[in-house]
Amino acid sequence: MAIKSFWAWGLESEEPTMEQMREMAAKVSQQYGVNLEAVAPPKLSELTLRQPRISPPASIAQFCSTETHDRAVRSYGRGFRDRIRAFNRQFPNPPDVVANPRNEQEVEAVLGWCSEAGHIAIPYGAGSSVVGGVEPPEDADGIVSIDLSALDKVLEIDHLSRAARIQAGVYGPALEDQLRPHGFTLRHFPQSFEHSTLGGWIATRSGGHYATNHTHIDDFVESVRMVTPTGIWESRRLPGSGAGPSPDRMIIGSEGILGVITEAWMRVQGRPRFRASAGVTFPTLQASADAARLITQSKLWPANCRVLGPGEAANAAGLDGSQALLVLGFESADVPQGDFMREAVAIARDAGGLVDEDAIKIVDTKSQAADAGRQGAVGNWRDSFIRAPYIRNMTAGLGLVGDTLETAITWDRWPQLDAAVRDALNGALRRTCGGGTVTCRFTHVYPDGPAPYYTFEGLSKPGGEIETCDELKAAASDAIIAAGGTITHHHAVGKLHRPWYDQQRPDAFAAALKAAKAAVDPNGVLNPGVLIDP
Amino acid sequence: MAIKSFWAWGLESEEPTMEQMREMAAKVSQQYGVNLEAVAPPKLSELTLRQPRISPPASIAQFCSTETHDRAVRSYGRGFRDRIRAFNRQFPNPPDVVANPRNEQEVEAVLGWCSEAGHIAIPYGAGSSVVGGVEPPEDADGIVSIDLSALDKVLEIDHLSRAARIQAGVYGPALEDQLRPHGFTLRHFPQSFEHSTLGGWIATRSGGHYATNHTHIDDFVESVRMVTPTGIWESRRLPGSGAGPSPDRMIIGSEGILGVITEAWMRVQGRPRFRASAGVTFPTLQASADAARLITQSKLWPANCRVLGPGEAANAAGLDGSQALLVLGFESADVPQGDFMREAVAIARDAGGLVDEDAIKIVDTKSQAADAGRQGAVGNWRDSFIRAPYIRNMTAGLGLVGDTLETAITWDRWPQLDAAVRDALNGALRRTCGGGTVTCRFTHVYPDGPAPYYTFEGLSKPGGEIETCDELKAAASDAIIAAGGTITHHHAVGKLHRPWYDQQRPDAFAAALKAAKAAVDPNGVLNPGVLIDP
Repeated sequence: MAIKSFWAWGLESEEPTMEQMREMAAKVSQQYGVNLEAVAPPKLSELTLRQPRISPPASIAQFCSTETHDRAVRSYGRGFRDRIRAFNRQFPNPPDVVANPRNEQEVEAVLGWCSEAGHIAIPYGAGSSVVGGVEPPEDADGIVSIDLSALDKVLEIDHLSRAARIQAGVYGPALEDQLRPHGFTLRHFPQSFEHSTLGGWIATRSGGHYATNHTHIDDFVESVRMVTPTGIWESRRLPGSGAGPSPDRMIIGSEGILGVITEAWMRVQGRPRFRASAGVTFPTLQASADAARLITQSKLWPANCRVLGPGEAANAAGLDGSQALLVLGFESADVPQGDFMREAVAIARDAGGLVDEDAIKIVDTKSQAADAGRQGAVGNWRDSFIRAPYIRNMTAGLGLVGDTLETAITWDRWPQLDAAVRDALNGALRRTCGGGTVTCRFTHVYPDGPAPYYTFEGLSKPGGEIETCDELKAAASDAIIAAGGTITHHHAVGKLHRPWYDQQRPDAFAAALKAAKAAVDPNGVLNPGVLIDP
Repeated sequence: MAIKSFWAWGLESEEPTMEQMREMAAKVSQQYGVNLEAVAPPKLSELTLRQPRISPPASIAQFCSTETHDRAVRSYGRGFRDRIRAFNRQFPNPPDVVANPRNEQEVEAVLGWCSEAGHIAIPYGAGSSVVGGVEPPEDADGIVSIDLSALDKVLEIDHLSRAARIQAGVYGPALEDQLRPHGFTLRHFPQSFEHSTLGGWIATRSGGHYATNHTHIDDFVESVRMVTPTGIWESRRLPGSGAGPSPDRMIIGSEGILGVITEAWMRVQGRPRFRASAGVTFPTLQASADAARLITQSKLWPANCRVLGPGEAANAAGLDGSQALLVLGFESADVPQGDFMREAVAIARDAGGLVDEDAIKIVDTKSQAADAGRQGAVGNWRDSFIRAPYIRNMTAGLGLVGDTLETAITWDRWPQLDAAVRDALNGALRRTCGGGTVTCRFTHVYPDGPAPYYTFEGLSKPGGEIETCDELKAAASDAIIAAGGTITHHHAVGKLHRPWYDQQRPDAFAAALKAAKAAVDPNGVLNPGVLIDP
């Protein structure tokens, strides 16, 4: 199996070379008018981890590891502050043991050991959390990271219902590889796709490929199976139900505090044969937002309805920085999409958008479909979307602070939220970095509001990046909560978002969730500090 | 305010006359080849209820009642066994007090009294439950029915986000009356529409107007506010969120065991201007089911995609009993629907359906839209759908046992479930009534499965109706659970469905829910016996 980098996004083989680091240092130096030197990335041989404080019993030792690499990889997620700490060789609190159960019985065995012995159990998918969701708590005596990646199979496919029973530890690409021969796809492509798992998506309410209609993983879960310290929690496969509060919806978003998700029946899609795409320009972000609102409220349900503010449109699509861009895409396995696109374009034009007729691409035959969405501006955007975390690897050690954050808000309050978030980020960038950049796009659009996604960057001092990033994030998070938004649309809560999540969620719900957790995890071993206090 | 019938579906003024009862007796007599006499309906003066065992304190007495009519009405829901018992003047266990709070503070006051004094508190919307959801438990010492119907206002409308803040006690028609001047509609039209409330829909995961895509009330709740014995539980207005398990989804379907829902921000719809409708015939129910599956999987998302088996198609649409009918409807406030309908019809024809070109109705102008869907076969169906519970009033006392039940199942298992439910019902009808009728339709269709809805009828003996109905329901429910279905798609669980719900929901979830309830309702006063044991 490919070896993960213990500090960077991606595999060890994909870590940036010193040459790439130097090129990036030169580029950033030019951009900011400074003179930065590339710093050599860490080597595994430079790490000395705390000795494991606990030993797995013989019954489970066979699939447990205390190797340095295994423990270092699972010490952090892959957010900005994770990468910087790892780059700086800071591993003060690694898990003591990494378990790699090969089947559900082994998951039960290791979780049973943790529960009985009082060791902390951290369910671990692919570790792409950017919110401290898989990071061990500091005050624990023994920590076990339970890596699900050996549970990586599509077990069963129901062709008629378009559903598949899938093990939770499967990574995005391997999942698609197994569905493809059957003509299906989950079409769940978060930016973390290559290095995240089905179980992780479910545990964190991941946001997916579709910009409108069903897109959160929530909507694609038909049933789910989870190991808890008190037994198996498994729901029935049902297309819909009105029988009490949804058991699945209590698992979805539970971020490992209730149990270890082992498998799920997922609603899958036929592979798209018909496509249509168009890019519509607008004089302002607000004008393109209005168009996205009207198209979504019309229920045409485009697969893509992404709004790029002028800054993002310049960076990602080569526009001149004075225009916003609405990227529209329709796709279907079953029905030609030209009519849908024409209706959407008509709405966008009514809202002041410009698009040339020949820039509206409609693919109605199978031979054309293979490449559709992989070429031109849309293809460029897709590639840069997937490459972005790798690019960020190269800036480690330079003092560059760049991160993203996302929220959702109803339309009536969106302009105020946008202004508040920009003010907060720009103010914090001035204080910490003497300035920087803030751009915005919509990743998803709902009839009642957008999911704005902000990217910010500034040059701090090497060694001060984490403090600076924390200050920037805190300023933006305060603004989001004050403006009525959610602290996260699809990055989850983990530990990092806790101060704002605690302001957001109803107190009575937190009390109910805490009690629910105590019922299934009576010794409180599962991922303490995430979502709620132990 | 209009006075509710204490025994029949609807208002006192809508109770059947003796003349209507006699006509119905003659009709049923002819149908079954017997000679039945109409029985006089009960009068309020014939009832002597148990003396109230508790008295509200002075602080809340002003909005509390112990009147016979108030207590009789709230002794039962409006299912078959409720109507029969009420018709038979059986009111052994009425609530002691009916509270009619006029605002949220008064809800808090009465719930506070119940919690402190240990009186059972039953949140009551319009009392249309068919599953014992509002029926007092038998082993309680003091019972308070909390009627929300005075909280009946649309409080606020956010036109831009198409959302409205609405009090939970508003009845369907009054809700639509308040939205209409603003150009909006909730488009949530369960059969109980006239006599059910927003809060009731949310508490029971009501299924709505749309046959595909968003249709359960779950999808339309933007945020919700609930009074619990330990405080207010209110979520943020958000179009989407990934912040922990959804707090709303724990309330939705909670059937009054966690608190009293007082208001919600609901996603509303523009009033339809564009419509298209068509009826497609098929030689068998299975052929029409296949077409419905393919249309739903194509994601054309028709507003109506109802499958009527040959029996239902004969009863409700005048077909000859040898054909199944697929009723297709598209509607939109924003976009002409002709293209969508043509795609759907093409799929239906590919699946073996027959429809004349001139039977495809497309309405593209505003003047036409007013009447669309209100005329012809679709209009007839709509009227008979709303009138059905009133018709059932007229059969009380005749020994006729007629009821409905519903489920949902994935496509792969649907044929087996259908066969099993029919076998179970027909077998039980033969045992109890010497035979009877069973028909099926799909009320809702999902990409991964249908929501089949069964109507059964047989002639039992007067006085034996409830026992017979219970036996029929139990046989069907056993079959549904054994075949992998849900015990309810949109009728809720209440007390009646408990034996099967207990087999369906994960045990670990039940433990979590019980713990969650104890956290917000520490004295266990809220609707005990519904969903979980006290």
